[in-house]
Amino acid sequence: MNACPLEFISLAQRLADAARPVVRTYFRTPIAVDTKADDSPVTIADREVEAAMRAILDVEYPGHGILGEEQGQRDCDAEWVWVLDPIDGTAAFITGKPSFGTLIALAHRGRPVLGIIDQAFTDERWLGVAGQPTTLNGQPVSVRACPDLAHARAFTTAPELFDDATRPGWDRIAARVRGVRYGCDCYAYALVATGFVDLVVEAGLKPYDYSALVPVVEGAGGLMTDWQGQPLTIWSEGRVVAAGDARSHAEALAVLAG
Amino acid sequence: MNACPLEFISLAQRLADAARPVVRTYFRTPIAVDTKADDSPVTIADREVEAAMRAILDVEYPGHGILGEEQGQRDCDAEWVWVLDPIDGTAAFITGKPSFGTLIALAHRGRPVLGIIDQAFTDERWLGVAGQPTTLNGQPVSVRACPDLAHARAFTTAPELFDDATRPGWDRIAARVRGVRYGCDCYAYALVATGFVDLVVEAGLKPYDYSALVPVVEGAGGLMTDWQGQPLTIWSEGRVVAAGDARSHAEALAVLAG
Repeated sequence: MNACPLEFISLAQRLADAARPVVRTYFRTPIAVDTKADDSPVTIADREVEAAMRAILDVEYPGHGILGEEQGQRDCDAEWVWVLDPIDGTAAFITGKPSFGTLIALAHRGRPVLGIIDQAFTDERWLGVAGQPTTLNGQPVSVRACPDLAHARAFTTAPELFDDATRPGWDRIAARVRGVRYGCDCYAYALVATGFVDLVVEAGLKPYDYSALVPVVEGAGGLMTDWQGQPLTIWSEGRVVAAGDARSHAEALAVLAG
Repeated sequence: MNACPLEFISLAQRLADAARPVVRTYFRTPIAVDTKADDSPVTIADREVEAAMRAILDVEYPGHGILGEEQGQRDCDAEWVWVLDPIDGTAAFITGKPSFGTLIALAHRGRPVLGIIDQAFTDERWLGVAGQPTTLNGQPVSVRACPDLAHARAFTTAPELFDDATRPGWDRIAARVRGVRYGCDCYAYALVATGFVDLVVEAGLKPYDYSALVPVVEGAGGLMTDWQGQPLTIWSEGRVVAAGDARSHAEALAVLAG
């Protein structure tokens, strides 16, 4: 496993600290909602939060790459690449629902080795670092046991996010688990890492949607891979399975394979 | 409109105050989840929160009726009936997601005249009283304008909650609005009252699921009725439409009627 230098952990925390006040300034205020080319919503909050984080990286680590949701990429073949989603769950953000989060990942040669899920309204920050226990506001958290899908409580953001290729897989998962709920965005993965959700299955994600989640889930004792069980990198196709228990993860992969 | 005596507003606040510490004791702790006859989950938290509220009513207002989710009903033909859902959104509660809430309603001759949505984790309490402005933690809130469904951001808890009779109506709504999101339980109605969500459509609700929401939404300037546009009472069949703007509400009723 790739190690993450201590100074980069401290830097990631400072990025999250810079994001928070901007998020709080705009959450539950009547801001304009624009529509991006892919029909997804974007606001001034997304843009300003990302700018606040990039300003720090530009000054302190100009040699690092950046892959950001709103302001594009730079040097993504660098050894270290920061992967930033200023507001994951913009649809939640603009409807006032605190299941969005600021996602900050650091990838080493494409593999995420650090992840932060920061929820500015509920004042919760999950930090995952390769080889270390995941923490929530500094306290270690861990996944819970779940022997099989029949016992699993599963989340996905919305059934509409699956396409014709991926929906049958999700439908098979939904028919197998103990319960399905929707509408959590990154927060669902944080709840896997904290031991209250057993499984998240999604598709169509971008690197900035999933990279930060991997170290958080895995540092808490879970597994997070693509639908073939391969490790996620910043170049993966965006079909992800996160599970707290390796047995549920293996069963989910088998069910997704059909 | 029926008026609500001041002493009952104070009493409702005390019921919510009694519920909170019990909710907080159990939220995000590994409690056992039992299954009720209708296959819905229930925990010790649901039972103890309702018991804490009923204990106050039993002593102070033995002449009032009570309709509670977990511990049944008493004197529901009384002039005043308290309608209690100790934890609306138990599925959210047991997965650690703060979109559940404690719902407290007071019905006068069957019509809700007071409602509280209390979120113990985010420390948010919405209070709606007939003829008064709805408040969030004591500050007035209000709905926002939304001229038609094409501009509406809509919520429902989960598409699975509709049955064969009600799903076509929901599908028509979902096809018409600007955006649909899931997984909010009572919190979606609170967000209508606060001006960040435009429409909530649900079906299959029980009186304790919707009674508290009516005064909250209407006191903020919105409308909340059944699918025929009739006022909700504790005897309604549980198909509800809440909207921040009367124009969106009227259009939603027409779309639901087919």
